[in-house]
Amino acid sequence: MRTAIYPGSFDPITNGHLDIIHRALKVFDRIIIAVGINNEKKSVFPAEARVRMIQTATRGLNVEVDSFNCLLIDYARKKKCRIILRSFRALSDFDYEFQMALLNRKMYPSLEVVFLMPGQENLYLSSSAVKEFARKGGDIKGLVPGTVYKSILSGFR
Amino acid sequence: MRTAIYPGSFDPITNGHLDIIHRALKVFDRIIIAVGINNEKKSVFPAEARVRMIQTATRGLNVEVDSFNCLLIDYARKKKCRIILRSFRALSDFDYEFQMALLNRKMYPSLEVVFLMPGQENLYLSSSAVKEFARKGGDIKGLVPGTVYKSILSGFR
Amino acid sequence: MRTAIYPGSFDPITNGHLDIIHRALKVFDRIIIAVGINNEKKSVFPAEARVRMIQTATRGLNVEVDSFNCLLIDYARKKKCRIILRSFRALSDFDYEFQMALLNRKMYPSLEVVFLMPGQENLYLSSSAVKEFARKGGDIKGLVPGTVYKSILSGFR
Amino acid sequence: MRTAIYPGSFDPITNGHLDIIHRALKVFDRIIIAVGINNEKKSVFPAEARVRMIQTATRGLNVEVDSFNCLLIDYARKKKCRIILRSFRALSDFDYEFQMALLNRKMYPSLEVVFLMPGQENLYLSSSAVKEFARKGGDIKGLVPGTVYKSILSGFR
Amino acid sequence: MRTAIYPGSFDPITNGHLDIIHRALKVFDRIIIAVGINNEKKSVFPAEARVRMIQTATRGLNVEVDSFNCLLIDYARKKKCRIILRSFRALSDFDYEFQMALLNRKMYPSLEVVFLMPGQENLYLSSSAVKEFARKGGDIKGLVPGTVYKSILSGFR
Amino acid sequence: MRTAIYPGSFDPITNGHLDIIHRALKVFDRIIIAVGINNEKKSVFPAEARVRMIQTATRGLNVEVDSFNCLLIDYARKKKCRIILRSFRALSDFDYEFQMALLNRKMYPSLEVVFLMPGQENLYLSSSAVKEFARKGGDIKGLVPGTVYKSILSGFR
Repeated sequence: MRTAIYPGSFDPITNGHLDIIHRALKVFDRIIIAVGINNEKKSVFPAEARVRMIQTATRGLNVEVDSFNCLLIDYARKKKCRIILRSFRALSDFDYEFQMALLNRKMYPSLEVVFLMPGQENLYLSSSAVKEFARKGGDIKGLVPGTVYKSILSGFR
Repeated sequence: MRTAIYPGSFDPITNGHLDIIHRALKVFDRIIIAVGINNEKKSVFPAEARVRMIQTATRGLNVEVDSFNCLLIDYARKKKCRIILRSFRALSDFDYEFQMALLNRKMYPSLEVVFLMPGQENLYLSSSAVKEFARKGGDIKGLVPGTVYKSILSGFR
Repeated sequence: MRTAIYPGSFDPITNGHLDIIHRALKVFDRIIIAVGINNEKKSVFPAEARVRMIQTATRGLNVEVDSFNCLLIDYARKKKCRIILRSFRALSDFDYEFQMALLNRKMYPSLEVVFLMPGQENLYLSSSAVKEFARKGGDIKGLVPGTVYKSILSGFR
Repeated sequence: MRTAIYPGSFDPITNGHLDIIHRALKVFDRIIIAVGINNEKKSVFPAEARVRMIQTATRGLNVEVDSFNCLLIDYARKKKCRIILRSFRALSDFDYEFQMALLNRKMYPSLEVVFLMPGQENLYLSSSAVKEFARKGGDIKGLVPGTVYKSILSGFR
Repeated sequence: MRTAIYPGSFDPITNGHLDIIHRALKVFDRIIIAVGINNEKKSVFPAEARVRMIQTATRGLNVEVDSFNCLLIDYARKKKCRIILRSFRALSDFDYEFQMALLNRKMYPSLEVVFLMPGQENLYLSSSAVKEFARKGGDIKGLVPGTVYKSILSGFR
Repeated sequence: MRTAIYPGSFDPITNGHLDIIHRALKVFDRIIIAVGINNEKKSVFPAEARVRMIQTATRGLNVEVDSFNCLLIDYARKKKCRIILRSFRALSDFDYEFQMALLNRKMYPSLEVVFLMPGQENLYLSSSAVKEFARKGGDIKGLVPGTVYKSILSGFR
């Protein structure tokens, strides 16, 4: 059985993330969605809320939702999983992802990083765009999973 | 009469902005220069000061200087204007602008985003470069409109 | 009345071009679609066929379809038009467009270059992609204007 | 069993390709290496030679080496395989790959494109760099698989 | 004697910096490594500690280690040195460096900016990657100069 | 004495090249301008004409003008020079230069590649832009060295 870890902040989960998860399940048997906890970076939603929203949005899919606050390579070792799943939306992602993949593989040579591309209707979607939108009163329906729309909205009030 | 909205922080207005405004007035009849108020991001100059500096620098041009603190698409709807004017200086602008344009058009399909390029003598100019320069005692003459040079300088003291 | 020149090879016209033309007509009153004739570069369709296909596809729109085999800046001078319309699909376009805009404006300082972005369903569309597709027997319906679909197809046989 | 198609010109196969194949076999059970035949583009090595060199270089790996001269999406349909494997070395690859992936998925919606990154010692390696090197008398040992080094060399004489 | 100024935050010095310094000493006779003090940006290591770590790591090389808290162009004038040395690791560096070089040369026309590239084993290395790594308990041996490894580690505790 | 090799096609030399040569002479004592002869790529000007035009344009400068038709690294070895000078104008140069520098340094580890940036008035200038311009009857005065303007013009007739 092939498993991949899909790490991210998911602050909050968007339709872009969900799109990637569905695509990834055509490639892998199971995805571990791993919410990174970064004490240096303030998040809008606490880690537990982020995990819960992902669980609601991915109900019925063969995924495990988890969180971690160590290095990604240490988390991967702990989960005995050597495949990291990442997503590109745009060029600016490319550069950062490239450097992180090179660095992680130097530190953990048997690690592999696999990149998927969201559908074109999600190319503009990011958690920060959703947050900026919601903060100014924009309607984020269509940008985030319907099942967690209300709980996400309440995070900006 | 064709009107376009030119949104930005203008913190402060630079010769690069002024260059774009002059170019835009060859394409449009009238420009609404709209200072975005973002309570999450600290600005060096308060919104009213930014509006006033733009008014001084654009005296005699067919522009309206305004401010807004809602979503850009809501502001555009309110002004009954469907053309947004943006500027590219460099590649890193491209990516962000691309994503914002796609997102805004999804939310407001009849919106159009028009891009102009500054003259080559202004390709390096940004409000943040001006601020970094001024903060360290650099002379920003030639980087900002002459008419507001003094009031800008005083903002860094 | 504001007129812009939209230059290109249009070998052949795609739905991406048509998308840009419709968007441009929200910004300008009239568009001159100018087919560039480049004797150094082999085209699949002769210039007259390219012009005719554009005429068919833009029937009823306020456009003029023309061809030119001189420098773009000389053509613009001849047409007494100082606005050039260009489109970005992707990053690689950016760099080339940037250099050409700087060069053209050096040679013809009052020229302005205005950039529009196609809709996201057309971000991947280019004449060369269409040609590669058609050459290998792919169905290009949905990639090119319906009215010229048949005449385009016959160009690859 | 998960199979992915790895399409390319492989004119000739390099150590960069071999690196990607080894990485891909950590993610997939089996790889179909598919040499694209493009009658429009002259190749240094005929398709059969390219296939043979890949077979020699991948002996013992769970791969199938094949060639195709139709559209990639038609080849994928024929092989009943919905996963395409591609590699990024550099930014300029990104843009092209992005557009091709969007176009292919529009035409074959259930297709998924998976990207891997070569090891950093292969980031500069491409078939065209190898060809340019060999043509000018450079020693390509270390750039191409040892087993096919001699047959590749003879292709440039 | 040719001298170049190599400015940066060096918070902390990495093997990537050291790589650039060694390469630069093949091009120049002497390098002034200039630690920028930026009161607006919090650093992990105080300026004096950064200077000391660089001194330890570059012992025996023909370098001067210094710090400055004015504009780089004013520092260059003071040191009577017209060559600035910068390093590219990745594309995202390119854009920023490009703008800064254009701005600095506008302000100090006889200034020249010279770019070097680190070895490929250091392409992923940045001070911020090192800091993120160390903060989460990662072992940064191999990422920073051996001589200052311990003092760097203690900075994160 | 520090010498650097500045390789290129110089088909023909432009003001952008000349700009780089002047800047390089602030960094190095002497520049070897090396015209690459590539039998695979048709040039507008034969190698001897290109060499002669560069000699005319650089009269009085401490340069040597030469040509080579081997690998650049072999030429560098022959000239006992370990510094290669290259220029960036735009992002698309970056990627290619990056790969070539990594490849060349792998093959000749003690080689160093030094990058300079042209002045902003030359950012759009390339030999191919000049050729496209001249071919269509554009006036290339201001784009190429005055001393060779006439001989360049005659190359396009």
